[in-house]
Amino acid sequence: MERYEHGGRVYDANGKIGDWLDFSANINPLGLSEKILRTLEENLCGVVNYPDPNATELKIAIAERYGVSEKNLVLLNGAAEFFYLYLNLMRYRRVIIPVPSFAEYERAARAARCEVKYFMTDAADNFAPNIDKLCAEVTGKDCVILGRPNNPTGNLIAPEKILRLAEVTNVLVDESFIDFIDAPSLRKFVSAKISVVQSLTKIFAIPGLRLGFAVVAEDLAQRLNMAKDVWNVNFLAQKVGAAALTDEEYLRQTRMWLTTEREYFIGRLKAMGVEFIPPSVNFVLMKFPTIDRAEKILQGLRREKILLRSCGNFVGLDESYLRSAVRSHDENLRLLDTIEKLLEVM
Amino acid sequence: MERYEHGGRVYDANGKIGDWLDFSANINPLGLSEKILRTLEENLCGVVNYPDPNATELKIAIAERYGVSEKNLVLLNGAAEFFYLYLNLMRYRRVIIPVPSFAEYERAARAARCEVKYFMTDAADNFAPNIDKLCAEVTGKDCVILGRPNNPTGNLIAPEKILRLAEVTNVLVDESFIDFIDAPSLRKFVSAKISVVQSLTKIFAIPGLRLGFAVVAEDLAQRLNMAKDVWNVNFLAQKVGAAALTDEEYLRQTRMWLTTEREYFIGRLKAMGVEFIPPSVNFVLMKFPTIDRAEKILQGLRREKILLRSCGNFVGLDESYLRSAVRSHDENLRLLDTIEKLLEVM
Repeated sequence: MERYEHGGRVYDANGKIGDWLDFSANINPLGLSEKILRTLEENLCGVVNYPDPNATELKIAIAERYGVSEKNLVLLNGAAEFFYLYLNLMRYRRVIIPVPSFAEYERAARAARCEVKYFMTDAADNFAPNIDKLCAEVTGKDCVILGRPNNPTGNLIAPEKILRLAEVTNVLVDESFIDFIDAPSLRKFVSAKISVVQSLTKIFAIPGLRLGFAVVAEDLAQRLNMAKDVWNVNFLAQKVGAAALTDEEYLRQTRMWLTTEREYFIGRLKAMGVEFIPPSVNFVLMKFPTIDRAEKILQGLRREKILLRSCGNFVGLDESYLRSAVRSHDENLRLLDTIEKLLEVM
Repeated sequence: MERYEHGGRVYDANGKIGDWLDFSANINPLGLSEKILRTLEENLCGVVNYPDPNATELKIAIAERYGVSEKNLVLLNGAAEFFYLYLNLMRYRRVIIPVPSFAEYERAARAARCEVKYFMTDAADNFAPNIDKLCAEVTGKDCVILGRPNNPTGNLIAPEKILRLAEVTNVLVDESFIDFIDAPSLRKFVSAKISVVQSLTKIFAIPGLRLGFAVVAEDLAQRLNMAKDVWNVNFLAQKVGAAALTDEEYLRQTRMWLTTEREYFIGRLKAMGVEFIPPSVNFVLMKFPTIDRAEKILQGLRREKILLRSCGNFVGLDESYLRSAVRSHDENLRLLDTIEKLLEVM
């Protein structure tokens, strides 16, 4: 894999989508809700209009759902846009990244010409960062970027630890997977030192539409909104986002599915003797005894048209780690049965 | 109007689209082509996938249509994204903007913390920049941003003048309206000193989808592509772009419509004694004798649910200037008849 390559690579060399069962991207397997599909169909012809530069409907929906003020919002063409936008504006001297983590943090930091410093975490601690040590290493001029839960490890750092960290440095918290579970968010602790970004594409299964938002201090929201064009969130993403955020039933079903299927998933892994980091959301980081065994699993699955995420290009991991989304029961069954068969002949 | 406000403001305070006949945004009135509509319908459910990070189909389509190499391309979530992306990466000390022009040039330059210097142009010259004077004012460390044709004046600067300018400074040429006419592009002159950006949303009537591209020197393309996330062009925009760019018939009809309707439009203006800058593409900059008269026209049209673009927030213009898109014959008729009636009672 290339240095900053991600999962979800279902396209062939001609740009056509292949017939993959994709566990390499962490998308809600419940798929497009009825409400989203209808909203898309009803608004297709609306793309002849510019997106609402104020994104009024979407902002109201986000503010209501998450209990934040519209004045603290920055709307995004996917959460990934934020790392570039924020770091370009802030121009921190140094960005500190607890690793392994999402590669866009580093890529955006380098684009903004920041010095990048990795903060290593240990597999023995399930990759939880040691906050005392981290606090001792940072200054008020730095910025720490943390996934919460962290991708690919699943580590869900406690809000108190972020608050401690924010006493000594600036913290950008990426809560892109938080809606999959019922966990307290850092949104309500947003300050001059704490910014929170969130994706809406994973939970609503709309990565192709692009949609995310950040909750930041009010003056920072103003500056960030001036640092991007006003049309960055496309018309359909605005409409779909506004509709999806009121769909309580979809979110309830999502959490029900995840509770059941995550248990099933890790139960099967345990039964097969596959090591894994305890997952917090909809993906599981597995560890195989050797790179060779993991590669054989990966290739064996590819032959069955199943994609997993190799972790060779995550700083702090290697190819013996594989990340898998949790998907629908039938899909998980197919994946886990195939892994089981591959393990039997090793 | 606010400092950086644009045309196309058809949304009310609740974010609902009003029943406007909108001449304030310069969108192709032929609207969504059959091909685009079909592509949207067929690919709706595809938004459960991430956009192709290589945007292979779209890159091939752009490269073929415009005779450029894929290696020189940067794909964009609308052309406006480019000004922020490019200026953040380049960090020029100073950006020089011949005015009046598109407000995003200045807004993006300020976001990237560049010094902004206006280069004034004269109504007496139809706002054509004096290239000798401009060349004398710039240095190799500056960047000049030029619309070609320029929005809102319509001025279409000759390629030779850009080439002369590029001998002494860096030039970013915005050719977002060039496809409306049969004019030579600067794309084939792209170099370390000349970059070209182009919108695809105006010509194909898809501003809500967001789509644009830049043609730049190969090494700069690599750097720009590393300075943004790989999913910035959404799945539907990629699909629609690839389909639309091969639709020769739509482009032929667009140019036929424009030739006829622009003639009709300016013929009527002449007959009414309304001053205007000779248009080059699908919009016309009109000048009324006083701000008061222009405001009365604007308000009178609003009462008939017709939107024009007041030019009070363009540096170098004032509220006596109104910009109008050229639209379909029936729509132009409605606009021009209404203006005529308003003038009769003044």
